[in-house]
Amino acid sequence: MSHNTFGHLFRVTTWGESHGAAIGCVVDGCPPGLPLTAEEIQAFLDRRKPGQSRFTTQRREPDEVAILSGVFQNDQGIDVTTGAPIALEIRNVDQRSKDYGDIAEKFRPGHADFTYWEKYGIRDYRGGGRSSARETALRVAAGAVARKVLGPDITIRGALVQVGPHKVDRSRWDWDAVAGNPFFCPDAETAHTWEGFLDGIRKAGSSTGAVIEVVAEGVPPGWGAPIYGKLDQDLASAMMSINAVKAVEIGDGMEAAELTGEENADEIRIGSDGSPLFLTNHAGGILGGISTGQPVVCRFAVKPTSSILTPKLTIDRYGRETEIVTKGRHDPCVGIRAVPVGEAMMAIVLADHMLRHRGQCGS
Amino acid sequence: MSHNTFGHLFRVTTWGESHGAAIGCVVDGCPPGLPLTAEEIQAFLDRRKPGQSRFTTQRREPDEVAILSGVFQNDQGIDVTTGAPIALEIRNVDQRSKDYGDIAEKFRPGHADFTYWEKYGIRDYRGGGRSSARETALRVAAGAVARKVLGPDITIRGALVQVGPHKVDRSRWDWDAVAGNPFFCPDAETAHTWEGFLDGIRKAGSSTGAVIEVVAEGVPPGWGAPIYGKLDQDLASAMMSINAVKAVEIGDGMEAAELTGEENADEIRIGSDGSPLFLTNHAGGILGGISTGQPVVCRFAVKPTSSILTPKLTIDRYGRETEIVTKGRHDPCVGIRAVPVGEAMMAIVLADHMLRHRGQCGS
Amino acid sequence: MSHNTFGHLFRVTTWGESHGAAIGCVVDGCPPGLPLTAEEIQAFLDRRKPGQSRFTTQRREPDEVAILSGVFQNDQGIDVTTGAPIALEIRNVDQRSKDYGDIAEKFRPGHADFTYWEKYGIRDYRGGGRSSARETALRVAAGAVARKVLGPDITIRGALVQVGPHKVDRSRWDWDAVAGNPFFCPDAETAHTWEGFLDGIRKAGSSTGAVIEVVAEGVPPGWGAPIYGKLDQDLASAMMSINAVKAVEIGDGMEAAELTGEENADEIRIGSDGSPLFLTNHAGGILGGISTGQPVVCRFAVKPTSSILTPKLTIDRYGRETEIVTKGRHDPCVGIRAVPVGEAMMAIVLADHMLRHRGQCGS
Amino acid sequence: MSHNTFGHLFRVTTWGESHGAAIGCVVDGCPPGLPLTAEEIQAFLDRRKPGQSRFTTQRREPDEVAILSGVFQNDQGIDVTTGAPIALEIRNVDQRSKDYGDIAEKFRPGHADFTYWEKYGIRDYRGGGRSSARETALRVAAGAVARKVLGPDITIRGALVQVGPHKVDRSRWDWDAVAGNPFFCPDAETAHTWEGFLDGIRKAGSSTGAVIEVVAEGVPPGWGAPIYGKLDQDLASAMMSINAVKAVEIGDGMEAAELTGEENADEIRIGSDGSPLFLTNHAGGILGGISTGQPVVCRFAVKPTSSILTPKLTIDRYGRETEIVTKGRHDPCVGIRAVPVGEAMMAIVLADHMLRHRGQCGS
Repeated sequence: MSHNTFGHLFRVTTWGESHGAAIGCVVDGCPPGLPLTAEEIQAFLDRRKPGQSRFTTQRREPDEVAILSGVFQNDQGIDVTTGAPIALEIRNVDQRSKDYGDIAEKFRPGHADFTYWEKYGIRDYRGGGRSSARETALRVAAGAVARKVLGPDITIRGALVQVGPHKVDRSRWDWDAVAGNPFFCPDAETAHTWEGFLDGIRKAGSSTGAVIEVVAEGVPPGWGAPIYGKLDQDLASAMMSINAVKAVEIGDGMEAAELTGEENADEIRIGSDGSPLFLTNHAGGILGGISTGQPVVCRFAVKPTSSILTPKLTIDRYGRETEIVTKGRHDPCVGIRAVPVGEAMMAIVLADHMLRHRGQCGS
Repeated sequence: MSHNTFGHLFRVTTWGESHGAAIGCVVDGCPPGLPLTAEEIQAFLDRRKPGQSRFTTQRREPDEVAILSGVFQNDQGIDVTTGAPIALEIRNVDQRSKDYGDIAEKFRPGHADFTYWEKYGIRDYRGGGRSSARETALRVAAGAVARKVLGPDITIRGALVQVGPHKVDRSRWDWDAVAGNPFFCPDAETAHTWEGFLDGIRKAGSSTGAVIEVVAEGVPPGWGAPIYGKLDQDLASAMMSINAVKAVEIGDGMEAAELTGEENADEIRIGSDGSPLFLTNHAGGILGGISTGQPVVCRFAVKPTSSILTPKLTIDRYGRETEIVTKGRHDPCVGIRAVPVGEAMMAIVLADHMLRHRGQCGS
Repeated sequence: MSHNTFGHLFRVTTWGESHGAAIGCVVDGCPPGLPLTAEEIQAFLDRRKPGQSRFTTQRREPDEVAILSGVFQNDQGIDVTTGAPIALEIRNVDQRSKDYGDIAEKFRPGHADFTYWEKYGIRDYRGGGRSSARETALRVAAGAVARKVLGPDITIRGALVQVGPHKVDRSRWDWDAVAGNPFFCPDAETAHTWEGFLDGIRKAGSSTGAVIEVVAEGVPPGWGAPIYGKLDQDLASAMMSINAVKAVEIGDGMEAAELTGEENADEIRIGSDGSPLFLTNHAGGILGGISTGQPVVCRFAVKPTSSILTPKLTIDRYGRETEIVTKGRHDPCVGIRAVPVGEAMMAIVLADHMLRHRGQCGS
Repeated sequence: MSHNTFGHLFRVTTWGESHGAAIGCVVDGCPPGLPLTAEEIQAFLDRRKPGQSRFTTQRREPDEVAILSGVFQNDQGIDVTTGAPIALEIRNVDQRSKDYGDIAEKFRPGHADFTYWEKYGIRDYRGGGRSSARETALRVAAGAVARKVLGPDITIRGALVQVGPHKVDRSRWDWDAVAGNPFFCPDAETAHTWEGFLDGIRKAGSSTGAVIEVVAEGVPPGWGAPIYGKLDQDLASAMMSINAVKAVEIGDGMEAAELTGEENADEIRIGSDGSPLFLTNHAGGILGGISTGQPVVCRFAVKPTSSILTPKLTIDRYGRETEIVTKGRHDPCVGIRAVPVGEAMMAIVLADHMLRHRGQCGS
């Protein structure tokens, strides 16, 4: 029962507002003895960092992470986790002293401005405060720790698979292409299409939605805890908790509705190594809430950001009708930077389930 | 941290296997003083009960629920909740002594048979054991209690909106139509189409997927707890925990990916009663994880059941390649009976968030 | 966050009122593959059963437990746990139809009657309802499962060490004596003293407090999770949750206040087997919230029951001053039957910590 | 399920090692709109600060707390809580670069050195690392927030009631005396005795145990959640989680064992204000795990610190027998500084239960 904590045995608690003094997280329950440095975490943060292309916000957020606890030098002179809580912190540096007037008083349609106000009667409106996507930097940082827990045999990779109406061509899927364009796009040709599309969005001061796919390979069968600690359930929870996410799919997702039982059946053979071999993966690597040993496949849809240049009808906090235009540095497609965030949440869910499975079943 | 518990302040713990002695649940944290009888719960169970048409399994499951604790007669002679845990129990009566041979030894492709075996090394295969959809009867029972917590001002209704490739025509949506066909279909004309389609599926010993939509009206603004106790996050978790669900959508769901910021913005005016009035509801009643006061809209996709008459390649528990055909009494479309289950999970999530909000914010 | 659940990975949820239809519990998170029968659980329940001597209540509570889920026959024909929740249930048989008049209306001084009424505005007064010590039968049942998790290398034994002002002579401590008297007394001579003392209490319609000591041997070093999941913290929580308990001690307990650092230091040597050997055990087997490998020693004090024959001043639920006398079948010393309850809670705490330790640290 | 978090709706997660870069905590679930400044928190920290007399450690720990999140200026220009997590942080300044040699290699008898090593295989030995009592500064800081939640009508006060064998004379109890001596002693005459006693302990390089009593007045009846969320259970958990605590008592505590039912009964009358009036308070303000409305009384015993000048037999981390002497700046009686810590834990438990009660029961 915690509003700002995710996970059970591997737990992440985040804190901080977009334009406050700092943001941070506490990673609790991490196994001891895992090598961990700030540099390793920083590498993941840098993938999410804004301003790396003209397609993401031009805010300057160096996002330099510090490890404040939970790591200690072992006898070999290597910094390793101690089993104590790992505190990660990012000091804010881009806190321009500016006039937040409009946002302070008015609610952006489609934004949490309104609901925070309704719930709490007070809100830190600066840069979105607690509801800012800046919080997702901490997910990425915690996800880097989670990857350490999972070890090198589990690979977690994400890609942007749709921007607005434009989907990737899965026949051209190439994981190596992901790093070769500013969109984490696994299909170089589609990346080219997106470039033009997003330039139009950007110049119009508009925004667009997107779909992200995250795949985890190497997950052994048996992780996940039915009935209410299902692996897919926790993935759904994890991904839906990311800002702006409106849908989560496992395996065939919504399209499973259109399948027949014959089409949906992932038939099983015995592979050359003597272990079970599935002929297809409609299930996305999860059956009955438990991993099958196949790749775990999760997708989520991100809505377009509500910060746009077109005036929109709204009200202010005094209950008066008005209009709002959001100026400033925006993300034409927040879905781009959601890719490393989705990877991180996959890692966090898997690390938690690895420990939970080991707790109950002993391996 | 509980594998078989859902919720925090309003908590539901379920137990039992499909063909065991009984199934049951414990509803903990219920406010005291709410009138509650077994008959009221039974009414909801009866909506989910199998065998009510030729389109659901013909198994006889009377599903008679008993309240074993947590209710006591007040001074007015009315049975009310006491604040103590409410134990609900359904004794199993249709436990045919039969040969489970094939299912006991082989794994149905697309079924949890395989993963339970991999995880635990032992499984109660009778009728699907713990992984059977029979467990969802308890969700419906607990959901009936949750509705009592929410009170009469909150209305929760579900409908089947897609069967296989056939979607309802939303222009013909009529909540009153839902009770008038065996599919919980809000569009009588589409219900007719489904009848023909499902007869075909049924006669072929096949199965099909479906999509369910659940809408909660009357939810006040302010429920939901960011960042990791978001209302939509908990709905995603709740719905994905239902058997066979592969995707969850809030509001526009996957289609949000195709929208621009202008299209997605739910503009706000002041209504004639002086309170905020949203002109659209792309958000599905949730912004930043907190309810807006608009209808909360959630959809989920259900895959086709793996119990089909067509032989499928699989392996047995000794690692030998084989084939399997599932005979017996099946649901051609498990999505039908998932409608009351989805309603129940919506009620459970909302009841939990009502209490959580009251705990932190005092009303 | 659960009012009626104890534990984290090994979790026990209890339900039921003293004179309701049944009482029960759900044991969740149990590792799979452990042999478990109702008979084994019954053996522990029988040790707690009332009416076994004239020193405990003469109520007839056969307390016959049934396992309703979570156990299945393995290939060897042995009933083993499946990893699914284990539902245990005891049907109530001694529900005399009687007039509860006085207790229904008045609050017994020193009893939860008053506080349940204040909290909930409704209470099941029959036999104490939810606040009855009858609930502890379920702890004993769940404790029997916990012992299976711990395995045969961990021994948990309890003893009554003080009744009213009369303490056992520790120089005469003999575990084998515990089963030889109706008090679980490890000192036969003191048991004789208690017999006379308690006959006096009993005949006077009075009651007396007591102290129970529980010792777990064979616990490996390393269990317990600082800072807020300390082993001693969870033992304190577990024991204090038992009805009528007013104090919990670990190791030297309250007397640690009188020690100097020199006296308190449990010096360490290397034993003949090469492992650490403590020369004393003031710590009661726990340092920094983590087990040392020494016996874990816990004591708790039980107050006298409030059901006595002497009239006491009180008020009724209408706020009127009155007197109360509690007739009926009472325990002159509820501490006697608290011995198996304390053992059970020790087992539950240890089982939970075993799984938690394995989850984080891998063994 | 969190190793470093305490509480449910009002939750405190702490992190940090004694000689690391910083220590901190995250207070989650705090109601919005409560005025809160670092100065107010600092006032409580200063009461716990070491070096205020010759009877506590002479380490310099300014313990300056910063609020990094969760507070925002309201329209009246007052900093108030926002409902978002409150991050509190204390940077470490007294990290002498020194040789930790002996402590790095050897285990102090009676200290967590040994168990951390056994559990994790790595430990930050500098100043006790995570097991240092320095962590309790964060409890005090979080307790200051908890007091804000409870409001001015609830008074929480602590006192030292025993040092070594010397108990206060309760007939001379005077809360005003507590601030008038360096021991938080409510009995000026006993404080004089302690002064001499502790000078002896201090000069001998020895240490002594102590007993702390914490009393909360103004707690309304009805807080606490049976069966496993009892108010006394959570107090026992809270107090036992404090470093060096070996026993917790509620009301009469261990002495309840010696009482008869007649003596223990807290008789009830109707007070002049028409509300229930208890004639005694053996129960310590809690019956059946729920507050009665009387003062909540809790005591706990603290063992003497293991850092003493007398050589003690021990082993080192290589399993070799050796001796250890702990030089440096020690607390002759750690119980003194445990008084504000105990008060803080009482406040945290009560704040959590206030919100939990409001969640379930609505007020």
